[in-house]
Amino acid sequence: MEARLERVLIVGTGLLGCSTGLALRAAGFAGLIGGWDKDARQLQTAVARGAVEQAATSAEDALHTAGAMDLILLSGPVYAILDWMQKLAPVLRPHQLVSDVGSTKALITTSAERLFAGTERAGFLPGHPMAGKETGGAASAEAALFRDAAWIFTQSPLQSLPSAAQGVASAWREWVTRIGAIPVDMNAAEHDELLAWTSHLPQFVATALAAELQSRLGNSAARGQIGGRALREMTRLGASPFSMWRDIAATNAEAIAAALLAVEQRLAHIRENLRTPELRDEFDQANRFRSS
Amino acid sequence: MEARLERVLIVGTGLLGCSTGLALRAAGFAGLIGGWDKDARQLQTAVARGAVEQAATSAEDALHTAGAMDLILLSGPVYAILDWMQKLAPVLRPHQLVSDVGSTKALITTSAERLFAGTERAGFLPGHPMAGKETGGAASAEAALFRDAAWIFTQSPLQSLPSAAQGVASAWREWVTRIGAIPVDMNAAEHDELLAWTSHLPQFVATALAAELQSRLGNSAARGQIGGRALREMTRLGASPFSMWRDIAATNAEAIAAALLAVEQRLAHIRENLRTPELRDEFDQANRFRSS
Repeated sequence: MEARLERVLIVGTGLLGCSTGLALRAAGFAGLIGGWDKDARQLQTAVARGAVEQAATSAEDALHTAGAMDLILLSGPVYAILDWMQKLAPVLRPHQLVSDVGSTKALITTSAERLFAGTERAGFLPGHPMAGKETGGAASAEAALFRDAAWIFTQSPLQSLPSAAQGVASAWREWVTRIGAIPVDMNAAEHDELLAWTSHLPQFVATALAAELQSRLGNSAARGQIGGRALREMTRLGASPFSMWRDIAATNAEAIAAALLAVEQRLAHIRENLRTPELRDEFDQANRFRSS
Repeated sequence: MEARLERVLIVGTGLLGCSTGLALRAAGFAGLIGGWDKDARQLQTAVARGAVEQAATSAEDALHTAGAMDLILLSGPVYAILDWMQKLAPVLRPHQLVSDVGSTKALITTSAERLFAGTERAGFLPGHPMAGKETGGAASAEAALFRDAAWIFTQSPLQSLPSAAQGVASAWREWVTRIGAIPVDMNAAEHDELLAWTSHLPQFVATALAAELQSRLGNSAARGQIGGRALREMTRLGASPFSMWRDIAATNAEAIAAALLAVEQRLAHIRENLRTPELRDEFDQANRFRSS
């Protein structure tokens, strides 16, 4: 069956949504790209930058427009994606595909099993590109954002795609490759566990460190004079917006809590061994992580 | 009294020592620069790069040579600096100045009060440039390493410089400015407390994070594919050598332990509030640190 992917609607035209539109155009996508964002500035910027050709005038208009699309790509915080999944599921048809770029995948994937089930419903392919920036928004978007980045798919074996949507799914994976990303398949639980360690843990450690330093040092002159690259680097993620991380924290709380507890315990071990040879083991272990 | 600073001996020609030699030459220092390092490769590299003109042939030779110098600059881990302070104090004379670039200042400053006291002894001016790199050694040295960096001095009011050494001290502060650094005066306790938060805490947090990730993920393929800029940045300091940090941990243990405990408690607070609105306060606080 020939893949047909000529009409895409991007719901949420912030950093990832706008970058996807730019990347598709840069890779030669000649079809229609529609867009919607509840923040009018994000949508206007995405249109002005050429990532979106046809802007919806309202959420209702976007929902209506979705009916004529091959692919609806949901971008934004996890709960916003879940909202759109609920709106879209009843109105789409089996030859259509919904995909997303949400940061956690267990809740989205199990919701898809429920909402996009059966032969009457559209297909749903959960996805997550490993790309981002400390500053969000369409203004920071880049066509090259996904180059050499993994683009994870967490299709549930319990929720097989309608045969009509399978062609669109294959075509979408093909486009992901054309924009420079590397499709990687894993299950949603593996994804959330792995990301808890490699992405969520570093974020919450940076937030804790920056928040503690703010409460101790505030805007003292000494801080500006003394703090060097190490301090800047270890607190850069402190600038990350709560609006994005609230949903990640809430939808992957168990795995994140386990990772945080492990680091708390390791910090305590270091604290108790500042004057003992045990400290060397911690540095050796950390050195190995960096050299491997 | 005219400042006379024409003969400098750099003891420890690794990153900071070799960079100081290179920076002095680049700023027009035309006097003699002698050097010594117990690691023959560091010393050879410093000579080959032009940071050191006259290499001592042994520690004994360096100690002998020191007698003919205006300034002896001690560079390296804190305990190595303390060793050299003990060797030098009995053999130098009041017109000579010893300074250092050690990472913690309380122990060095109180040792100076004891070892470099009275009119018969040389002067000692404790110093610490806020500059470094993740890779140490003379090969990584740069003439521009100290540009726009604070160079902290923690002279104790209890240990006044011999009048003959005061001119050398003024001249040395002048050279510190000429190589692009900004002299900053504070007392040793303030220095160690401030650095515990701005330098030592970020290091031990990075070590804990990298060590924990190494024990969880090892060299798994997934880690390489998934880990992005955030992970790299938050663990870069994990590569720091234990040899340097052992002395910092041991000589500033109390302040570092207090800072680590505060971050452990903040991580626990975040962990307990992953699903509550309290999490917003942590992000707000961290956001403020980054925007100020």
